[in-house]
Amino acid sequence: MTRVRDLSEEQILERIVPLLPRGSATLLGPGDDAAVLAAPDGRFVVSTDVLVEDRHFRTRWSTGYDVGRRAAAQNLADIAAMGARPTALVTSLVVPGDTELDWVTGLAIGLADGCAPVGAGAVGGDLSGGPFLVVSITVHGDLEGRPPVLRSGARPGDVVAHAGVRGWSAAGLALLEAGLVRTPLSTAPLEVTDGVLLEDAWERLVAAYLRPDPPLAAGVSAAQAGATAMLDLSDGLLRDAGRIARASGVRLDLDAGAFAKDRDALHSAARAVAAATGLGDPGWGPGTADIDGLVGRWVWGGGEDHGLLATFPAGTELPAGWTAVGRVQAVGEAGPAVTIGGEAPADQPGWDHFRA
Amino acid sequence: MTRVRDLSEEQILERIVPLLPRGSATLLGPGDDAAVLAAPDGRFVVSTDVLVEDRHFRTRWSTGYDVGRRAAAQNLADIAAMGARPTALVTSLVVPGDTELDWVTGLAIGLADGCAPVGAGAVGGDLSGGPFLVVSITVHGDLEGRPPVLRSGARPGDVVAHAGVRGWSAAGLALLEAGLVRTPLSTAPLEVTDGVLLEDAWERLVAAYLRPDPPLAAGVSAAQAGATAMLDLSDGLLRDAGRIARASGVRLDLDAGAFAKDRDALHSAARAVAAATGLGDPGWGPGTADIDGLVGRWVWGGGEDHGLLATFPAGTELPAGWTAVGRVQAVGEAGPAVTIGGEAPADQPGWDHFRA
Repeated sequence: MTRVRDLSEEQILERIVPLLPRGSATLLGPGDDAAVLAAPDGRFVVSTDVLVEDRHFRTRWSTGYDVGRRAAAQNLADIAAMGARPTALVTSLVVPGDTELDWVTGLAIGLADGCAPVGAGAVGGDLSGGPFLVVSITVHGDLEGRPPVLRSGARPGDVVAHAGVRGWSAAGLALLEAGLVRTPLSTAPLEVTDGVLLEDAWERLVAAYLRPDPPLAAGVSAAQAGATAMLDLSDGLLRDAGRIARASGVRLDLDAGAFAKDRDALHSAARAVAAATGLGDPGWGPGTADIDGLVGRWVWGGGEDHGLLATFPAGTELPAGWTAVGRVQAVGEAGPAVTIGGEAPADQPGWDHFRA
Repeated sequence: MTRVRDLSEEQILERIVPLLPRGSATLLGPGDDAAVLAAPDGRFVVSTDVLVEDRHFRTRWSTGYDVGRRAAAQNLADIAAMGARPTALVTSLVVPGDTELDWVTGLAIGLADGCAPVGAGAVGGDLSGGPFLVVSITVHGDLEGRPPVLRSGARPGDVVAHAGVRGWSAAGLALLEAGLVRTPLSTAPLEVTDGVLLEDAWERLVAAYLRPDPPLAAGVSAAQAGATAMLDLSDGLLRDAGRIARASGVRLDLDAGAFAKDRDALHSAARAVAAATGLGDPGWGPGTADIDGLVGRWVWGGGEDHGLLATFPAGTELPAGWTAVGRVQAVGEAGPAVTIGGEAPADQPGWDHFRA
C-alpha cells in the first residue's frame, strides 16, 4: 500500500493531474505558476470553501472520492447561487504523510465527477503535508452577460422557490451517527438495530450527506427566468432564508406544507434513528420528543443540503426543478425575518463552525 | 482576552471584513455566495497556495500579521511570475477555537498590507474551526492583454535574470532556529550567544523569512520587456531554475559570482549560526563544514525567497530591479539542467513537503 510520504510532491501530482478535467474555459492548465481561464464577458465569479477532517467529514464514513465529490459540489453550488455557470476550480490539499495514495487519487476522481455535470475544469492546486486533512477549494464561474443574483434583491410580493433536496443531509448524518447505514470505510460491521434492514431510501439520504448533488443547472435557469435573489442552502433552511430576508429588508413567509415532499423517507429514517438512540438527542438539540419534531428539525434546521433558495417576481413561470414554497412580505419595524405559515418558527439551531 | 470560540462565525467576520482592501477590480465584495471580479481582457490568471502551522510557519516566531503578509506575498508572487498584475485574493482560514481574536485580525491586516503595493483586493473567504492553523489563499491577476509568461519559453542565447533577494529567507530561518533573533511571539527571552548583539542585517534576513516582500512590479515589467520564461523562486534557486530548463528543453548556466551581492550580511549570519550551533547542521543537510558552504546552501538551495527568475532575449535592456545572472544554453542528450559557471552544481536539497 502506497502512502503519500513514500512519494515526492511532484510524484503525487503526476498521479493526480491526469485525473482532473480540463474544462472548456481553461486556457492554461496545471504546471506553471498559475492557470489562465477565460472570462468571456469581462467578469468572473469567485468563491471559496474549506472542508476540515472531523468537522466537515470523517474518514470512517467518507472515502476520498466522497470528500472530493462533496468539496466540488458545495463550492459549485455557491457559483450556481449567483446565477453563474461554474467554469473551473483550484484545490489546496493538506494531507498527513500516512494517508493512502488511493485516498488522494480518489479525491481527485471525486472532484472530477463533481465537476462533470457542468463541464468545469480542475486547473491547479497546492499540496502540503500536515497533521490532518484539509481540502480548500476556490471555484470560478461565468455570468454569461447577466447581472449576478444577489441575496439582497427580494421584493414584497415575490414568490419564494426552492430547488434540490430538503433535510436529506441531516437525516443521512443522523443515520450514520446511529450506526444504521454501512459506509465503505466502516472498520467494523455495523450492528443492524432490531433487525431493520438497509433501505434504498436511507442510502439516498446518507449519499446526500456524503456527496451532495446540488441542482447546479437550476442556478443558471433561475437567473435566466429573472430571479430577484438567490442563495445556496448550506446552514439550514430557516437560517439561510433569514439571510435573504435581512439582506433584502423583507420577510420570507414559507408554506408549512411545502417541504413535506420527502415525508415518507424522512419519517422512516426518523423512526429508525429514534429507536436506535432511544429517542435521545442525535445532535439536534434537546427536546426531540417525537418523530415529527425530528423530521421538522432536519427539514427546517438541517445544514448542508446545498439546495438553492430564490425569489422570483410574482407570476414568473418557475423553471424546471423549482417549487414555490412561500411568499416575500414587507417587514414591519420588528418581527421575525422568516415565518412558517405566518407564524414565527420555534427556535432552530443553525450551523456555526465554532459553536456546533 | 477574546478567543475565536467566544464569537460566532458571523461576529468574527464582522471584525475581519472591514480590515480587508476592496481592490480596484472588485465589482462585488464579500457578503454574498461569491464575489464578482473584473477581467477586462476576457481572461484571468489564478493560483493557490496553502500555509500550514508548523510546516510553513510557527506561531512562536510568526505573528498573525506576519502570516498574513507572508500568505499574501507568496500567492501574489505566483501571479507576478506569469507577468500579470494581481487583482484580488480569497482566503480560507482554519483556526483552533482557542486562538486569540487578535491573531486573526492581525492576519487580516497582514493580508491587507501584503496586497497594498499592488492594489489587490481581499474579496472573500471561508472560516472554519480545526485543530491547527491553515491559511489557504487563491489569488487572481490580470494579463492586461499580454500573453502569460510561461516556464517553457526560454531559448538558447537568452539572458537569465533575477529580481528580489537571494538566500535571505533560509538565512533568516537559520537565525531563528539558532535563537539569534528575538521575535514578537517568543515566549521566553532568547539567549544571545557569546554576547553577539542583534544587527539590522540579521533582522532584515529574518523579516525576509517571516514576511517576504517579493518584487511584484518586476513581474509585469519583465513581461512588458519581452521575458521569454519566468517563475517564482519558492523551492530554491537551483531547483526552480531546473524547472525552467526542463520545461523549455534548455540548460540554464548561472554565473557563480552573480549572487554574491549580499555576501557580507549572509556571512555575518552564517558565522553566528555556525558559532551558535557548533557548526552543526541547521537544517540544510550534512557537510556544512564551513561558512562559505553554509552561505552557498542558503543562496543556491534555500527556499521561500520568492524572487523571480526570468529569461530575456539577448540584448534586452533589463527593467529596473532585474540583474543578469546567467545564460540559456542548448542542452545535449544528457547533462545537468542547471550549471554554475559551466559546472554541475553539488547536490542541493530542495523543499519537498512530504520529505523535508
